[in-house]
Amino acid sequence: MPTRDPIRPGLHDALIKHAGFSRDEFEFYCSLLKKRIVKKREHYLQAGDISRATAYVNSGCLRQYIIGDHSKEIIIQFALEDYWIGDLESFHFEKPSTFYIQALEDSELMLLSRENFLRVCEELPKYKTFHDGKVQRNHFATLKRLSIAKLGTPEEKYLLLMKEQPQLFQRIPLHHIASYLSIEPESLSRLRKRLTEKPRKS
Amino acid sequence: MPTRDPIRPGLHDALIKHAGFSRDEFEFYCSLLKKRIVKKREHYLQAGDISRATAYVNSGCLRQYIIGDHSKEIIIQFALEDYWIGDLESFHFEKPSTFYIQALEDSELMLLSRENFLRVCEELPKYKTFHDGKVQRNHFATLKRLSIAKLGTPEEKYLLLMKEQPQLFQRIPLHHIASYLSIEPESLSRLRKRLTEKPRKS
Repeated sequence: MPTRDPIRPGLHDALIKHAGFSRDEFEFYCSLLKKRIVKKREHYLQAGDISRATAYVNSGCLRQYIIGDHSKEIIIQFALEDYWIGDLESFHFEKPSTFYIQALEDSELMLLSRENFLRVCEELPKYKTFHDGKVQRNHFATLKRLSIAKLGTPEEKYLLLMKEQPQLFQRIPLHHIASYLSIEPESLSRLRKRLTEKPRKS
Repeated sequence: MPTRDPIRPGLHDALIKHAGFSRDEFEFYCSLLKKRIVKKREHYLQAGDISRATAYVNSGCLRQYIIGDHSKEIIIQFALEDYWIGDLESFHFEKPSTFYIQALEDSELMLLSRENFLRVCEELPKYKTFHDGKVQRNHFATLKRLSIAKLGTPEEKYLLLMKEQPQLFQRIPLHHIASYLSIEPESLSRLRKRLTEKPRKS
């Protein structure tokens, strides 16, 4: 049996349990993946590049961000293990991306090229259904984030993130989390201090 | 031949040209639609309701918004003719919506119930493909709006909307546009005045 790099159980579960792949289909899918190591601080994608693959995060941590006027960086999302990262619009339409994706830790990505993506979608239509379902869930989450970006106070944004993705605070420098929350780093520090010191209502 | 309410050419084009429906399939689809009139200021959806249908805007204009602390309303999107409106997350998962949808003009919606949506997806899988494509495009647009909400100055947000959806300014009261752009209404008025008075660079 050919050996391949160990793939996290998250991908196995996603494809077997959620996409309904058989064992053989899962092995076929894995045989199409290419490993890419992205060292800490290295970019996997830069604005202007075309995103040529979908990327499953096998290990590590990355940030996806945009750069605006005065070189201001705004983080749009983080990706830890078992997340998928990339610019799907660039990937599907083969047009230059507007995003940067940079590793915050040494990271291992499992890439599925556009050609292989199309092949899997054709040979295993359930993969297309699985992929479309992911896009839809991502869309709902982005709509929620848009609502919170427009409406939430800094405290609400912080507490929501603490509730939904507490693991980010263990792995990601606070100034990056501040950028993600669109809060000044100093304000986030003060906010955290205040919330820690405040006696909690039970 | 049975008569039915005239449906805008936008829906015809979308289904025949983009989804690949035949004439008969289009007629079958239209036979499943139910008309709903929503009078100006009336709500089509309120937070807590379950969105039971997808809605194509045959005429009129609506706003989708959320309500935050201190009853602050934030508009997430507008829908004019040929747009689809609703809360897809509520629709798909049959869970209470977090959104309000209100008519800004007397509006005519063509509703496809969840039951009929599932029936069409099953009988005409190309409709599911068409629908998933719409969700994907919507997702890309929402990601862009999230970037702009986080990064853009009020002037950038205003100019982008003027460029991408100038028709909104003909139909929608300015205080609603201000809410959509997350700008105070007075600031939007000043901004418009300043940009109108400023000699334009050619």
